[in-house]
Amino acid sequence: MAKFRLDETDHQILNMLIDNTRTPFTDIAKKLSISAGTVHVRVKKMEEAGIILGSSLTLNYEKLGYAFIAYVGIFLQNTSQTKFVLERINEIPFVTVAHVTTGKFNVFCKIRARDTQHAKEIIFQLDDIEGVYRTETMISLEESINDKKRLMHSIFENL
Amino acid sequence: MAKFRLDETDHQILNMLIDNTRTPFTDIAKKLSISAGTVHVRVKKMEEAGIILGSSLTLNYEKLGYAFIAYVGIFLQNTSQTKFVLERINEIPFVTVAHVTTGKFNVFCKIRARDTQHAKEIIFQLDDIEGVYRTETMISLEESINDKKRLMHSIFENL
Amino acid sequence: MAKFRLDETDHQILNMLIDNTRTPFTDIAKKLSISAGTVHVRVKKMEEAGIILGSSLTLNYEKLGYAFIAYVGIFLQNTSQTKFVLERINEIPFVTVAHVTTGKFNVFCKIRARDTQHAKEIIFQLDDIEGVYRTETMISLEESINDKKRLMHSIFENL
Amino acid sequence: MAKFRLDETDHQILNMLIDNTRTPFTDIAKKLSISAGTVHVRVKKMEEAGIILGSSLTLNYEKLGYAFIAYVGIFLQNTSQTKFVLERINEIPFVTVAHVTTGKFNVFCKIRARDTQHAKEIIFQLDDIEGVYRTETMISLEESINDKKRLMHSIFENL
Amino acid sequence: MAKFRLDETDHQILNMLIDNTRTPFTDIAKKLSISAGTVHVRVKKMEEAGIILGSSLTLNYEKLGYAFIAYVGIFLQNTSQTKFVLERINEIPFVTVAHVTTGKFNVFCKIRARDTQHAKEIIFQLDDIEGVYRTETMISLEESINDKKRLMHSIFENL
Amino acid sequence: MAKFRLDETDHQILNMLIDNTRTPFTDIAKKLSISAGTVHVRVKKMEEAGIILGSSLTLNYEKLGYAFIAYVGIFLQNTSQTKFVLERINEIPFVTVAHVTTGKFNVFCKIRARDTQHAKEIIFQLDDIEGVYRTETMISLEESINDKKRLMHSIFENL
Amino acid sequence: MAKFRLDETDHQILNMLIDNTRTPFTDIAKKLSISAGTVHVRVKKMEEAGIILGSSLTLNYEKLGYAFIAYVGIFLQNTSQTKFVLERINEIPFVTVAHVTTGKFNVFCKIRARDTQHAKEIIFQLDDIEGVYRTETMISLEESINDKKRLMHSIFENL
Amino acid sequence: MAKFRLDETDHQILNMLIDNTRTPFTDIAKKLSISAGTVHVRVKKMEEAGIILGSSLTLNYEKLGYAFIAYVGIFLQNTSQTKFVLERINEIPFVTVAHVTTGKFNVFCKIRARDTQHAKEIIFQLDDIEGVYRTETMISLEESINDKKRLMHSIFENL
Repeated sequence: MAKFRLDETDHQILNMLIDNTRTPFTDIAKKLSISAGTVHVRVKKMEEAGIILGSSLTLNYEKLGYAFIAYVGIFLQNTSQTKFVLERINEIPFVTVAHVTTGKFNVFCKIRARDTQHAKEIIFQLDDIEGVYRTETMISLEESINDKKRLMHSIFENL
Repeated sequence: MAKFRLDETDHQILNMLIDNTRTPFTDIAKKLSISAGTVHVRVKKMEEAGIILGSSLTLNYEKLGYAFIAYVGIFLQNTSQTKFVLERINEIPFVTVAHVTTGKFNVFCKIRARDTQHAKEIIFQLDDIEGVYRTETMISLEESINDKKRLMHSIFENL
Repeated sequence: MAKFRLDETDHQILNMLIDNTRTPFTDIAKKLSISAGTVHVRVKKMEEAGIILGSSLTLNYEKLGYAFIAYVGIFLQNTSQTKFVLERINEIPFVTVAHVTTGKFNVFCKIRARDTQHAKEIIFQLDDIEGVYRTETMISLEESINDKKRLMHSIFENL
Repeated sequence: MAKFRLDETDHQILNMLIDNTRTPFTDIAKKLSISAGTVHVRVKKMEEAGIILGSSLTLNYEKLGYAFIAYVGIFLQNTSQTKFVLERINEIPFVTVAHVTTGKFNVFCKIRARDTQHAKEIIFQLDDIEGVYRTETMISLEESINDKKRLMHSIFENL
Repeated sequence: MAKFRLDETDHQILNMLIDNTRTPFTDIAKKLSISAGTVHVRVKKMEEAGIILGSSLTLNYEKLGYAFIAYVGIFLQNTSQTKFVLERINEIPFVTVAHVTTGKFNVFCKIRARDTQHAKEIIFQLDDIEGVYRTETMISLEESINDKKRLMHSIFENL
Repeated sequence: MAKFRLDETDHQILNMLIDNTRTPFTDIAKKLSISAGTVHVRVKKMEEAGIILGSSLTLNYEKLGYAFIAYVGIFLQNTSQTKFVLERINEIPFVTVAHVTTGKFNVFCKIRARDTQHAKEIIFQLDDIEGVYRTETMISLEESINDKKRLMHSIFENL
Repeated sequence: MAKFRLDETDHQILNMLIDNTRTPFTDIAKKLSISAGTVHVRVKKMEEAGIILGSSLTLNYEKLGYAFIAYVGIFLQNTSQTKFVLERINEIPFVTVAHVTTGKFNVFCKIRARDTQHAKEIIFQLDDIEGVYRTETMISLEESINDKKRLMHSIFENL
Repeated sequence: MAKFRLDETDHQILNMLIDNTRTPFTDIAKKLSISAGTVHVRVKKMEEAGIILGSSLTLNYEKLGYAFIAYVGIFLQNTSQTKFVLERINEIPFVTVAHVTTGKFNVFCKIRARDTQHAKEIIFQLDDIEGVYRTETMISLEESINDKKRLMHSIFENL
């Protein structure tokens, strides 16, 4: 499973895009003293190699009325149902993350809801998926860190 | 805590930017039959209101050599140390998410590492923070869903 | 879900009734230097708005021979049965409180019984409800606080 | 520990007051074909015997902005601190119930809060009490039953 | 459920028999300065009242080759099966004690076995009873106290 | 650790004494067609070999007002304190059994109390022993089996 | 179950073979001042008595690409299935150890895998065995000790 | 961390040595139609590369009087003590395996003992190591699989 090799220029381009995905390529080019065409080619190559999968907005969910975050651990009746259950989970847009995990739970999800009542509805939807045996919920009192940018910068420093 | 009111046009702009943060404002304007200036003004307003906090790249961490994901539950000696501990956690870039939670754990983190050895180092760093009493780790065998876009679209449909 | 607005006079009326629901309206009126009619109108309005749901006696259950208190956590086979199970629970008068909860249990109850033997009968009744998978009981050794009046006073101070 | 003996008339009086503590004694007297003086004497006697401890309003806390209910299990460093800790807990008006319990927890509380943020503050207050070792919180998604009247009626039928 | 009233003489008789059930009644009589007939009558009365249920030898099980003690917690599929399961358990002579309990387990047993292999067989017998859902075993490394005599003496001092 | 060898006659003597420790030796002798002297010698030998440790009464504790049974699991701060803690536990007569155990608890006790209030006092006494870190209690709702005689008979059949 | 008696010479032979199973018998003979024939006879006798079951290489699994170790606890639906499930487990070569255990799990396994993905496949294979109800996995971050030689030497010193 | 490359001949040599480490190199050579010198060179190379770490006897511990196997989970006061604690554990020869683990425990050990009493001593030794906070033990009722040979063969088939 050979890794795609990024060079120093790629790192610097990514480092700038991480902080603002809308940074014009001409700005990046000027900063790095390369041509805008080179930036374009490099980004394209990283997209084709599947390194860059896309971009997304960082929104303030509290201001949008979605302040309630919970983690839901799911026990399956049988792990052979994992794929099927994940497809059903994927139909619930309020589940933003789902992992197959070791330890106590078979699947572990993160949900975002408007309030307690809405969270209850989402948890009940998860509970009602065929093959789901039981769920356990842990409620977030405060989202203190949610920041992949530190990770991204750190990766490029360590590569 | 009055919520900022978004109108239909704001929703449509956000809906397009969510899928590609680099969509040129002129494209958005054409699609919505409004002027590019209006798009610009609206986005600016949503940034100033703190609705749009920024943008970020979606990278393929596996290809970058960071395939190991774990959730780490942290028990504190005393919750009065929560703020201090979170500041220390914030210095570890491989912790991408941290929540103050109800239930078993005081703080619940998500980490991304290169491999088992690297994960061990990060967990030991967390364990060594003053005020951390014990940690419990749950390892992800597969990240099946990690997609806030469905949530974002759903929010704008429901507003 | 707009909240009913209580003014200072409402608060003062409630504050007096909380301590003794049988306080004559004329006493309240004199204390607040308003007419008894006003008191009557205000209480009526708060009843109609659903703020005041009723009143209840505070009895000494130990003296009545009901000294045994336990909390019973209920695991359901499936949360789709929640409504049905709650209806069955509601038929057991010795269950005084029941909550749908996050975490380990699906439903969490408080029961009051005469003694260990009676508690066993109530727990077995809960266990025998169709859809109840298992129960776990925690016994109260002493009811140290059971006082909503402090909460009520505090609410009116904070409003 | 001899129990106070209630006779049939006492039961009927209590049965009426349970449903409405403000029922005029003359109404009770008429219904039971006894004199209002007798009602008065009986109630007084039950108050003096400590059977009737008082009365309280049943308010709609959701409408008052206090919709968040949680159960908090408290682990003490040592049970010799139980009395001291309960006194500290008693200073927090948002704790409406507290029990010394068997099983996992030393003390088990019920709290009512405005929202997640407020609940966090209350939990942190509990955590900060000297002698409290750790807490575990279970959040109510729905208060389905909270009704002591069924119990009270049942007690008088069974006596 | 009126308790049988024991007087001082009964206590003294029991106190002597507790230490040695074979103490001749004439010895007891002499010690208490009463007639042997009185001792006989008192013991008979306590047997008829169901206070004295019988007597048993205290054997050294280690010397008899039964050194392995374990506690087995039993989860039932449904508590309505409790009675049936207890009857099945009662057929296994190596189960010396069984309780219906609150908390985690439905039934809690004490077993005595020759060794690990024998304990496994007994546990498997318990597991195979219809209605038993799962068992959990806790092994005794040392029986440090097994002495009801202190309790008995204490009871008679406190009565 | 050579085991004392019991022969068929010993077994038969024990089998009779198990059911009634007060059976006169002459009755045993007649039943087994041996001399009363032989019975006496055999019993003496088994006492000297430490096989028979003594005898005890089987009392009805419910009738004596001691109906409350609980199991208490004890966590020590350090197992080096085990011996010291067991000596302290041994001073509490209401603890009838105590084991050093594997698994969750360090020491596991059985207690008998008059009622909930008394049980609380005993549990608090255990909690207050120096070196005891925490306790967890499981309450018996019903003592369904407490019978070592089946075990004893079974042992002699299997020897 | 009489134990085979090893004498001092057997111990010394085993002590040398433990450290290097390929040690020539002539070397052992010289060291112990006995004939090579005696060594041969002794080893043969210990093999026939089933003391020596064979020999195995100690390989560096990390270097062979098998760095991932996990412990998997298995819950069975019913312990009567234990034998059948163990036969199925035995068909998975990546399970190197399996025990029937007391406590939480019915069967407890150790697995060795190439990486997280491979571990997931093995865990899913275990989960899919008929009669397996659920599994729980604990991942090794570092194998710090894996050395039976210390045990073997210690056994021969203690015999 | 480049892996040493084994070719088909290496695999076949290892495959034969795995089943019997004492197989003479001349037998291996004949079987594989290569010279004994080649076998010698290959084995030497694999030893120098650290692939072959040594060899060990497979003994029947039951016959040697060591039939008692347990798994002991260790909680540390702080993971910074891990290295120190592992050194202390390493001084106890009856601990045959120790892992730093994720999940509930910090360190997870396997021990072999003569019997319950001996196991208790080993567990107490572990408990008494400075920095060890608590231990939890799970006892093996039967070692059903302990066979790395299947793994080794499987590795060479998969390489």
